[in-house]
Amino acid sequence: MTTTAAQTEAQPPVTVTVLGLGEMGTALAHAFLAGGHPTTVWNRSPEKAGALVAEGAVRAATVREAVAAGSLVIVSVKGAATARELLEASGDALSGRTVVNLTDGTSAEARAAAEWAEGRGARYLHGQIMTIAPGVGGAETVVFYGGSAADHDRFQPVLRLIGGRGTLIAEDAGVPALYGMAVHGTMWGALNGFLHASALLASEGIGTARFLDDARASVSSLLASLPFIADEVDSGMYATEYGALRHHRPSVEDLVRESAARNVDTGFPRYTLGLVDKALAEGHGDDSYARLVEHFRR
Amino acid sequence: MTTTAAQTEAQPPVTVTVLGLGEMGTALAHAFLAGGHPTTVWNRSPEKAGALVAEGAVRAATVREAVAAGSLVIVSVKGAATARELLEASGDALSGRTVVNLTDGTSAEARAAAEWAEGRGARYLHGQIMTIAPGVGGAETVVFYGGSAADHDRFQPVLRLIGGRGTLIAEDAGVPALYGMAVHGTMWGALNGFLHASALLASEGIGTARFLDDARASVSSLLASLPFIADEVDSGMYATEYGALRHHRPSVEDLVRESAARNVDTGFPRYTLGLVDKALAEGHGDDSYARLVEHFRR
Repeated sequence: MTTTAAQTEAQPPVTVTVLGLGEMGTALAHAFLAGGHPTTVWNRSPEKAGALVAEGAVRAATVREAVAAGSLVIVSVKGAATARELLEASGDALSGRTVVNLTDGTSAEARAAAEWAEGRGARYLHGQIMTIAPGVGGAETVVFYGGSAADHDRFQPVLRLIGGRGTLIAEDAGVPALYGMAVHGTMWGALNGFLHASALLASEGIGTARFLDDARASVSSLLASLPFIADEVDSGMYATEYGALRHHRPSVEDLVRESAARNVDTGFPRYTLGLVDKALAEGHGDDSYARLVEHFRR
Repeated sequence: MTTTAAQTEAQPPVTVTVLGLGEMGTALAHAFLAGGHPTTVWNRSPEKAGALVAEGAVRAATVREAVAAGSLVIVSVKGAATARELLEASGDALSGRTVVNLTDGTSAEARAAAEWAEGRGARYLHGQIMTIAPGVGGAETVVFYGGSAADHDRFQPVLRLIGGRGTLIAEDAGVPALYGMAVHGTMWGALNGFLHASALLASEGIGTARFLDDARASVSSLLASLPFIADEVDSGMYATEYGALRHHRPSVEDLVRESAARNVDTGFPRYTLGLVDKALAEGHGDDSYARLVEHFRR
């Protein structure tokens, strides 16, 4: 690979290893190669490396050999247990290298991996990529990192190839998983509500795209309200003059009745009605919707 | 009330009646008065009209008298049954007037009110105001109207005082309720997910505002994905190359495990896990999350 002077100045090549060539690992290896970094790859089924080798990647025969070739070791596999097996298989080759583990799992699993790797003389960062494979390398792609700040700084030019909006959010390797879950949980909640709404609209012959077109401003204002809700949650001060839970209640009930009348699922609105009714029964009718965080805390 | 020539040209005064002076009805009457329209008000507890009378409103002694005073009759009360009672109490005074009913309820209740009022010689619009009382009159305030297009046009200058983003979305009085429910249902779903996430973050000592600050770009990208999901729903084509349900599954399971480990509610993530598992059991693992609309349709 020819490296121009400009590239050398802007971004000195770093030897990178990618363990795991699923959709995401493959996209990552492509990004590192395109960025001019000598890249070694390993995958359980070695044939997956074909296209990458054609682009200049080196295929390692063993995990240990792969790890020995990179100063930065990227792990992108399915499940924390698999990630741990690979790190164990690399033995003492890990020492002195920096592991960036992009494998999904819980915060406890990320911390256990960090502790294990650091015990073998490696430095460790956990990363949560907030996109699907085609988004790798995008200027707007968000990656949450947790772990060694020094290594996050040192490898910044390589990490930027994963996503333009990468940030170290904590020196604790467990936090990125929590952040990822928080975003995904909000998304799943919103999508469940949106898809339930789509079913309701479809029963009236109204397309979801048409609705969204008409209602975009209204849906957008949801996001604008999140910072206010965050402040209520953080302060524990839920009392509100307008839009209190007792005013939400009849609207949630309307949604249950409308769904039932149209033979659309009532489980989704009944779940929300249950949360609201519980808060009302506990005397919180004058509080905002943010009060419901107390339900989730037990 | 003195009306300047400019006002007369821009916005000829319309006699407006407001039935119901709760938070919302009071805000509406203020807006009409401020806009220069002779406004008559009625409320079950007449003392609520005090401040409005001081601003120039006329307090009617009966519903019938109030209705007879306005060419545009705004109804803003709690529940469709109450709205119907008021319309019935106005008797033949309704004939020739335009009713704008802003009372919450189901689409069937709105249609029944429209049919009843039209049967008494009135014209009818149903409106769904997508804000709380302090938002009345805001340039960005969304109002969904359904019903008489001619009356929506004719009273546009007055209706604009309710919210700058008022639109007639259908000639069917039932549709605004569906739109309102669709926005609210999406919001409740998102808030449930967000508050669950807040509980998770709090268990780690991370404030919700701090998280939101770090994750804003990532949360915003949720909204950007809604149009794609809408197209999948409308076309019934759910197959996707990336981000399929089988890839969501382990992440939802991580959220369940993380919640359990932190003594945070697992009902919310288990609900989502149940939806995903059902779709997987039905053989839809290669489909996008939009496939779950089928669950809600039965």
